[in-house]
Amino acid sequence: MPHIDLGSDAPGIRGLFAFRPETALPLNALAEVLLRGDSTLSRGERELIAAYVSSLNECRYCFSSHAAYAAAQLPEGMTLVEQVRTDLGSAPVTPKMRALLRIAASVQRGGREVSEEQIVAARAEDATDLEIHDTVLIAAAFCMFNRYVDGLATIAPDDPESYAARAKGIVANGYLALFAEMQAAAGRS
Amino acid sequence: MPHIDLGSDAPGIRGLFAFRPETALPLNALAEVLLRGDSTLSRGERELIAAYVSSLNECRYCFSSHAAYAAAQLPEGMTLVEQVRTDLGSAPVTPKMRALLRIAASVQRGGREVSEEQIVAARAEDATDLEIHDTVLIAAAFCMFNRYVDGLATIAPDDPESYAARAKGIVANGYLALFAEMQAAAGRS
Repeated sequence: MPHIDLGSDAPGIRGLFAFRPETALPLNALAEVLLRGDSTLSRGERELIAAYVSSLNECRYCFSSHAAYAAAQLPEGMTLVEQVRTDLGSAPVTPKMRALLRIAASVQRGGREVSEEQIVAARAEDATDLEIHDTVLIAAAFCMFNRYVDGLATIAPDDPESYAARAKGIVANGYLALFAEMQAAAGRS
Repeated sequence: MPHIDLGSDAPGIRGLFAFRPETALPLNALAEVLLRGDSTLSRGERELIAAYVSSLNECRYCFSSHAAYAAAQLPEGMTLVEQVRTDLGSAPVTPKMRALLRIAASVQRGGREVSEEQIVAARAEDATDLEIHDTVLIAAAFCMFNRYVDGLATIAPDDPESYAARAKGIVANGYLALFAEMQAAAGRS
């Protein structure tokens, strides 16, 4: 049961967005630009970083959500997400993605854990400054989202289908559209 | 030296905002609503939570910045910020703020560290659901900001005066105004 009365049964971060729309707007705007805005990293690759960090933080709701969003936008689907989660070293990602995911894992432990060697390794695989920047910020942002969702003890559905269904909406319309829909629904109720 | 070429000498998160204005906008909007928007927690109290979490994450730039912003908006000034940082148990904050700061410290370690007992203790001191929510989100957000600033190895000035000077602008005009000014300056250069 959530630590506070959210006034709805919406699970995970959706209940928090409904409870506090003033903070939900910039949070969704951040997710939209980081995970779906113009980038040389694909949307699937960026969701994979989000899912990986969420798994390291053991945030079940965020991992299940972003694993589903990554799977829906990666040719290799959920198999690759699970391989990355289980063993990044042997997962069949590109060398550049492996180097970026290693940076993300360091950020999860703490900002000063990112080493110069990790940056050099990413650059050697042709990662750009912007890709390194966005990887660090995606990883940092999920250290926020994961703590927000679990720090208030929100509910995570058990049914994988509920995350897969949600992925369709995210892939088609994105984070801000979903937030706008939620706002409209709240206004009608 | 920062891990990536930021294209400016701006320290800490300011250099990151200049490098990536697309993400800077929602990040500043989030800081504005969380730390300065309508709330039953004073702006000084909210900056104190931000400074405390930044000290726990050992992020020198963010701690120095938000300690200065807290000090500028709390009657007790920097003395109280240092007392909270050194020993929360004995610092002369209100019982409600002590309970909220304990929740923030749990969030810093990880979302699932927040205990039902901590929530009950905060409620016993008349903390509202919204105050508990905002405390968790401020603490989570600074786990992001701290990792962003240190994960890219940005520069933190040594001179306390540079943070105090910046505090005047934040207190007077807020986070979004400062970001707009920075954008305007970039447009002119």
